[in-house]
Amino acid sequence: MSFVLGPNQYGKAENRVVRVYRDTARHEIRDLNVSTALRGDFTEAHTTGDQANVLPTDTQKNTAFAFAKEHGVTSPEDYALTLGQRFLDVTPAATASRIEVEEYAWDRIEVGGTGHDHAFVKRGGEVRTTVVTRDRSRAQPRAWVVSGVKDLVVLKSTGSEFKGYLKDEYTTLQETDDRILATSLVARWRYETTEGVDWNKSFDDVRSLLLETFATTYSRALQESLYAMGSAVLAAHPEVAEIKFSAPNKHHFLVDLAPFGLDNPGEVFIAADRPYGLIEATVQRENGSDAGDAWLTVPGFC
Amino acid sequence: MSFVLGPNQYGKAENRVVRVYRDTARHEIRDLNVSTALRGDFTEAHTTGDQANVLPTDTQKNTAFAFAKEHGVTSPEDYALTLGQRFLDVTPAATASRIEVEEYAWDRIEVGGTGHDHAFVKRGGEVRTTVVTRDRSRAQPRAWVVSGVKDLVVLKSTGSEFKGYLKDEYTTLQETDDRILATSLVARWRYETTEGVDWNKSFDDVRSLLLETFATTYSRALQESLYAMGSAVLAAHPEVAEIKFSAPNKHHFLVDLAPFGLDNPGEVFIAADRPYGLIEATVQRENGSDAGDAWLTVPGFC
Amino acid sequence: MSFVLGPNQYGKAENRVVRVYRDTARHEIRDLNVSTALRGDFTEAHTTGDQANVLPTDTQKNTAFAFAKEHGVTSPEDYALTLGQRFLDVTPAATASRIEVEEYAWDRIEVGGTGHDHAFVKRGGEVRTTVVTRDRSRAQPRAWVVSGVKDLVVLKSTGSEFKGYLKDEYTTLQETDDRILATSLVARWRYETTEGVDWNKSFDDVRSLLLETFATTYSRALQESLYAMGSAVLAAHPEVAEIKFSAPNKHHFLVDLAPFGLDNPGEVFIAADRPYGLIEATVQRENGSDAGDAWLTVPGFC
Amino acid sequence: MSFVLGPNQYGKAENRVVRVYRDTARHEIRDLNVSTALRGDFTEAHTTGDQANVLPTDTQKNTAFAFAKEHGVTSPEDYALTLGQRFLDVTPAATASRIEVEEYAWDRIEVGGTGHDHAFVKRGGEVRTTVVTRDRSRAQPRAWVVSGVKDLVVLKSTGSEFKGYLKDEYTTLQETDDRILATSLVARWRYETTEGVDWNKSFDDVRSLLLETFATTYSRALQESLYAMGSAVLAAHPEVAEIKFSAPNKHHFLVDLAPFGLDNPGEVFIAADRPYGLIEATVQRENGSDAGDAWLTVPGFC
Repeated sequence: MSFVLGPNQYGKAENRVVRVYRDTARHEIRDLNVSTALRGDFTEAHTTGDQANVLPTDTQKNTAFAFAKEHGVTSPEDYALTLGQRFLDVTPAATASRIEVEEYAWDRIEVGGTGHDHAFVKRGGEVRTTVVTRDRSRAQPRAWVVSGVKDLVVLKSTGSEFKGYLKDEYTTLQETDDRILATSLVARWRYETTEGVDWNKSFDDVRSLLLETFATTYSRALQESLYAMGSAVLAAHPEVAEIKFSAPNKHHFLVDLAPFGLDNPGEVFIAADRPYGLIEATVQRENGSDAGDAWLTVPGFC
Repeated sequence: MSFVLGPNQYGKAENRVVRVYRDTARHEIRDLNVSTALRGDFTEAHTTGDQANVLPTDTQKNTAFAFAKEHGVTSPEDYALTLGQRFLDVTPAATASRIEVEEYAWDRIEVGGTGHDHAFVKRGGEVRTTVVTRDRSRAQPRAWVVSGVKDLVVLKSTGSEFKGYLKDEYTTLQETDDRILATSLVARWRYETTEGVDWNKSFDDVRSLLLETFATTYSRALQESLYAMGSAVLAAHPEVAEIKFSAPNKHHFLVDLAPFGLDNPGEVFIAADRPYGLIEATVQRENGSDAGDAWLTVPGFC
Repeated sequence: MSFVLGPNQYGKAENRVVRVYRDTARHEIRDLNVSTALRGDFTEAHTTGDQANVLPTDTQKNTAFAFAKEHGVTSPEDYALTLGQRFLDVTPAATASRIEVEEYAWDRIEVGGTGHDHAFVKRGGEVRTTVVTRDRSRAQPRAWVVSGVKDLVVLKSTGSEFKGYLKDEYTTLQETDDRILATSLVARWRYETTEGVDWNKSFDDVRSLLLETFATTYSRALQESLYAMGSAVLAAHPEVAEIKFSAPNKHHFLVDLAPFGLDNPGEVFIAADRPYGLIEATVQRENGSDAGDAWLTVPGFC
Repeated sequence: MSFVLGPNQYGKAENRVVRVYRDTARHEIRDLNVSTALRGDFTEAHTTGDQANVLPTDTQKNTAFAFAKEHGVTSPEDYALTLGQRFLDVTPAATASRIEVEEYAWDRIEVGGTGHDHAFVKRGGEVRTTVVTRDRSRAQPRAWVVSGVKDLVVLKSTGSEFKGYLKDEYTTLQETDDRILATSLVARWRYETTEGVDWNKSFDDVRSLLLETFATTYSRALQESLYAMGSAVLAAHPEVAEIKFSAPNKHHFLVDLAPFGLDNPGEVFIAADRPYGLIEATVQRENGSDAGDAWLTVPGFC
């Protein structure tokens, strides 16, 4: 019998890099969770234990922190593109690098109506994300940027129905013309290019457009809302090649108050934990660009 | 040998009550996590299994949802005061009730510069809390309201030192004139009364004052910041009897970049998970009112 | 207006101390999570920022690790008693110390029917706990040991009923003669003394007795099961002064399969997350010893 | 501009199905977390909101519970294979189904040296998993079973080194001949077939072999340990086509006790949370079978 090493990657996960800009009295802060990884021919490390080709995860960690100083953090995307190139440069056996960054937002604390210079309150809730992949296993080196947002919890208290669905002998769900629709959205979009994009502006605009479209779309199903949101982003953002959603349907069940002689016209709900619907969908351009390895090992995506 | 039942309480924890106000097209939403409990002489239930005196936790759950409709939710405090009285009224064996409420805030989604009527985004981060205790075991029935905020994550990127501390042979910490100070604040304050307070306004004002004071106080230790924050609240809010803090010192360690030939004047930090400092303190009025059972089983407080 | 510092404590939480005994080829491992704290008159630290009386939490951390080497870890209780005394010895302003330890168990990996010398698999599930308090604020210095177990998840698939309870107009629960009873038990017991106890043996025996009594007691309510468990421990263990339980009633609801033409005589259940019943109770000796500060700031106990 | 629906799936996640076998006084229990999903041409549901082709996630939930009664749960794999076929049968638009099952183990409570008939204690720790995919989009319908274990936390207190690695100017890690090696293992293996396998026996044997090989392999890196574990499984289990690992290197750092005049020859460690190394690897048969869609949307795998 003979066995071989198949797909593999290794790196340092969840480096909590906090970068403070303090060149003036008005500080800026970037708060990141950085995971780095390398792919390639690391067969010896696995089969004989010879680590000569392996850039240790500890060194990857050091580099992640040092680059926050040397190259700064103007955006998660720029930081990840630079860091991913570095690891390829110093690791001959690597054929690809993968840098994942989460960013947590901080707001200035309001003092007398003005944001304070160096005191911040964490915004909480949603997290900005990017996964940058650099590959040199092909004839032409390639890079992909997949950015997004996760834990963006949204809710509509009306303007949502669910009916006309397929039925079988296990169906008990009642059709409804009016329900709460809520989800904790994960959205990730692939950029057409790695250059010339204003990453921070693009993120802010896509995020706003997702929220607005969710709010203003009458929903016949979570699927329809997601598709409308994705289409709106592709229509307004030529720099976005495709967008993927993972959206738990966070059920809010209408509580039956009839046993207590009470009417409940959409006023009192129980927010349920499990089980939950889980809707995953991709909206793409017709005859769009090739995604290559952009989505490889991106968490939770079809 | 003879054994007896000592202190006890029972109830239904974490009822996820969502109340939508939809009397006009502009909906309002209150999103609560409600835990109810009763204390008293429930000896038979424990020793012989006779449940005749026990109002089931399932009934407590039903009441929590029904009261969100019948009495509404104008504030967590008013809702809890009403619910706690109800359980005493219908449970003769109970000597006290305890209602704990967490509230999650939602913001309207911005559409064209205006908040949408019925689409919301969860604010995330901090949680508003209250614990309301009603007791009738004494000559006079009493009630206490302890409100607060938790998971309020704040950070100062300068304006914090730590030095002049006690040293022994296990001390290795270097004194510092400038560090990051960060915490995930839990603050809980006891009100002097249960009537005549504008609970929502009081909460908003206390919260703002906590943030402002954190921002503008030069900190010689987290203890000093907390005491200043508590004093500011007591000075401005006569309705507040005392305030307690539980504040993990979320360490941000300066990364040593010298091995890479880089200076690091307070710019690159690693945010650590564990261990963390944990500072708990109470600020009280001199000769203040008796706290009674207000703090009994309030989570995590000295 | 004048404000004062009330109850307070500070320390280093969640030091993850792992102690390996490797004096022979057959290694032993103790895996701890250690939280230390001091109480006392630390007014200056709060009001003026003067830290001269404050033993830093960083020093507490160093001591926790150094003592694992110097004094070893024969049991969480002995380790905590020693560490708590140390902090009082070197901190004149402290009136009390509080050491909390969680211990995670590891089993030897089986190789050819025998446990391996130095390879282990984490047992998972339950956690052994202790909270040791030393106080010198009174005329006589005192110490208390409260040990326990948490996250001990147990279930009975029959032998549990719930009926005969108090009813009101919000009652909808049906009485039942047969249900699943399940809980994730937290049990904590106070020892009568701090000396002469075989902590490891006492823990093992109490734990076994709790499980056996849960298994063999017909349950008319979770309250009755807990009381029986507590009484059994007090009867068999004179070294135990009292025992407290916190037990979520982890509901397993019988699924209604009638719409699909299926009977369901206690065979298919849905395990629910929230809400859950929460039962807390103390079983004490009649005219038992004074608990002093033993339970002060012990998490989640009435 | 024209947009299209790309890869998508939808279903009900985390149905907590508990199945009790009580045909005799000696009960058996299967405790599952079941997530079901369908893939296919659901374009109308997304673009026009027409749900005529959509089997609701609520119906999927009902079926998951009903099948636990009708078809029983002899193993997660058999249950998932049956459930996945059902959803294809009743959903014409679906081209594939995906059933993921986690199973939590329970042990009988020991009473007088014997396991009790109907009282159980949750084993905790590791979770047994399976992901079963059925696809009919190709000429021949296919099915794949990927089973595994997660959260299997193992540790070696010696017999592990790390040296001879690639170095650059950001390298500060010291080489070591003796360290703690620990991981929280996720292992998933693809079966060659969906029939004729004794799923429970195969799982037990693979699990034991993984543990034994981890214990007895001298480790020059976590990569080498994983490869040895995978090879051992493939050698002993012809029914296994390939195996994938995701293994965080849970760092245990030797604590520097020299400042306190103490030696520390591998005795006192701090268990760190973040960052952690993350090693992912596949061990395959040379010229092995085609994996098809077996790994599609399996969480966290390269």
